[in-house]
Amino acid sequence: MPVQVAVCGPRHCTEQDQADAQQVGKLLAQAGATVICGGGTGVMAAVAAGARAENGLVIGIRPNDSTEGANPDLSAVIVTNMGEARNAAIVWSADAVIAIGGSWGTLSEIALAKRRGGIPVITLNGWTVLDHDGNPLPDTTLTADSPQDAVDLALNGSR
Amino acid sequence: MPVQVAVCGPRHCTEQDQADAQQVGKLLAQAGATVICGGGTGVMAAVAAGARAENGLVIGIRPNDSTEGANPDLSAVIVTNMGEARNAAIVWSADAVIAIGGSWGTLSEIALAKRRGGIPVITLNGWTVLDHDGNPLPDTTLTADSPQDAVDLALNGSR
Amino acid sequence: MPVQVAVCGPRHCTEQDQADAQQVGKLLAQAGATVICGGGTGVMAAVAAGARAENGLVIGIRPNDSTEGANPDLSAVIVTNMGEARNAAIVWSADAVIAIGGSWGTLSEIALAKRRGGIPVITLNGWTVLDHDGNPLPDTTLTADSPQDAVDLALNGSR
Amino acid sequence: MPVQVAVCGPRHCTEQDQADAQQVGKLLAQAGATVICGGGTGVMAAVAAGARAENGLVIGIRPNDSTEGANPDLSAVIVTNMGEARNAAIVWSADAVIAIGGSWGTLSEIALAKRRGGIPVITLNGWTVLDHDGNPLPDTTLTADSPQDAVDLALNGSR
Repeated sequence: MPVQVAVCGPRHCTEQDQADAQQVGKLLAQAGATVICGGGTGVMAAVAAGARAENGLVIGIRPNDSTEGANPDLSAVIVTNMGEARNAAIVWSADAVIAIGGSWGTLSEIALAKRRGGIPVITLNGWTVLDHDGNPLPDTTLTADSPQDAVDLALNGSR
Repeated sequence: MPVQVAVCGPRHCTEQDQADAQQVGKLLAQAGATVICGGGTGVMAAVAAGARAENGLVIGIRPNDSTEGANPDLSAVIVTNMGEARNAAIVWSADAVIAIGGSWGTLSEIALAKRRGGIPVITLNGWTVLDHDGNPLPDTTLTADSPQDAVDLALNGSR
Repeated sequence: MPVQVAVCGPRHCTEQDQADAQQVGKLLAQAGATVICGGGTGVMAAVAAGARAENGLVIGIRPNDSTEGANPDLSAVIVTNMGEARNAAIVWSADAVIAIGGSWGTLSEIALAKRRGGIPVITLNGWTVLDHDGNPLPDTTLTADSPQDAVDLALNGSR
Repeated sequence: MPVQVAVCGPRHCTEQDQADAQQVGKLLAQAGATVICGGGTGVMAAVAAGARAENGLVIGIRPNDSTEGANPDLSAVIVTNMGEARNAAIVWSADAVIAIGGSWGTLSEIALAKRRGGIPVITLNGWTVLDHDGNPLPDTTLTADSPQDAVDLALNGSR
């Protein structure tokens, strides 16, 4: 089975995040990886559009009880009816997680991925988390500086 | 997006169930439908093998916290780490549910699908449920007498 | 920690089911058992009222995203926002399951409890499940003929 | 029904966090609030012990498939068998969330609570989250400087 990479990000994202997500989707599809995402708008729609443009496989894992709100570029949609608890299913299904941009939902996915452990967690233009003393966390996420860098880190696990 | 049909059945199934599931998988793939299943052994593995043989898309939704135990014919695997609660996600993701054979897990999926309502629920060689007075239930499941019949009922919603 | 007994049943139940559920709630509370239920109307409300009348502890596990629809006799409410997947949490939290009356949601809880295994599953005026050959299942649920009988079976595990 | 306050924090916590959690549990119980927690070790065990010492009601919502690992001071235990997805149920069940100390699991609960919105989210000696530009987030959590302050913020919603 192909490698599965979860791509997370805000429903309401910046134009930069949108462009980055589309490029990440393209690169993942070109590499033969399956994209797992939340299946909605913003970063989720952009990564799906990018992957679909390269004939990639994109699975959207939705929080609500129907396909309403699912973006049009998904190959298949999983309707969990489990609200934001579906973020855990996104994270546990992934061989690597790329988070583009910042939002509380996105942060919950990063935190769940680090809680799970054992997989690369990459951020691109995301929020920063500091420990009690105001220092960057020792066991931290990987910071990418471009879509290509994010995909390389996801597929190779390290620079 | 293609129609999505959930195919449910026992992990430990009869040879008849296995043959039926494989045929259901083939027919669904030939019709261009996506197969959603539990991703494990028995009926789940047989329907995946059948769909894959026809180049169909098959998504396995797993109960445990890794891809361990996932059958080899899945196009993608959703790792829910939610135990049998994943049965609800299988059911809510489906435009129709076909249950082949009988087991308590399978019955939970039939019951959840009827609780959800609004989609065809088809059984093939499954268990029977009687009401308090020992009569078949008025709002009952559809009983198929062959894999072809099951697929027709799933895709057309009625005979 | 006290024994926890899940009491399941229809949202829309018969007067007999309602009276039975209230009596089951009273008897469980008198025995010092904690009642776990779905927290809604019908059997869920009746068992909560019965337990509360005897100062028992009653936890309602709700499917939706707020306490809306929770019955007034709950000691605490768990808001899962996970739809009918919450039925699995009800079942896994229980040392025994009593199902009063019949509905598809109730049947899903019985089926999940049998799928889990290892705990007594008792039905009172519920639906009947037959195997492929139309015979009662060998590894079947326990059939109670009164609220007292149901509670005895739940707390003792056998007659 | 009494107010329900979720208290989150690391399984492996500092002595300060443990003392703070115990005090938060005591204060919440004295105020008649129900404590919702993850039911395990560290902060979860300390808040349960504190609440129990004041005869408070404490519900533990567990990730695994049994009561194994549940701390001894819980009034009732919800066995979700849903892994870290149970963090969503903890958060959605709460009228306010207090996070004591820092860990990825704790951060996932804070993030889910902010994603949900509409309830006070209070941190005590927790991690800090900065936006893309390295500034504190505008719609941020409330920072408490003592257990009493945390409880006041949780029960009053504002200073």
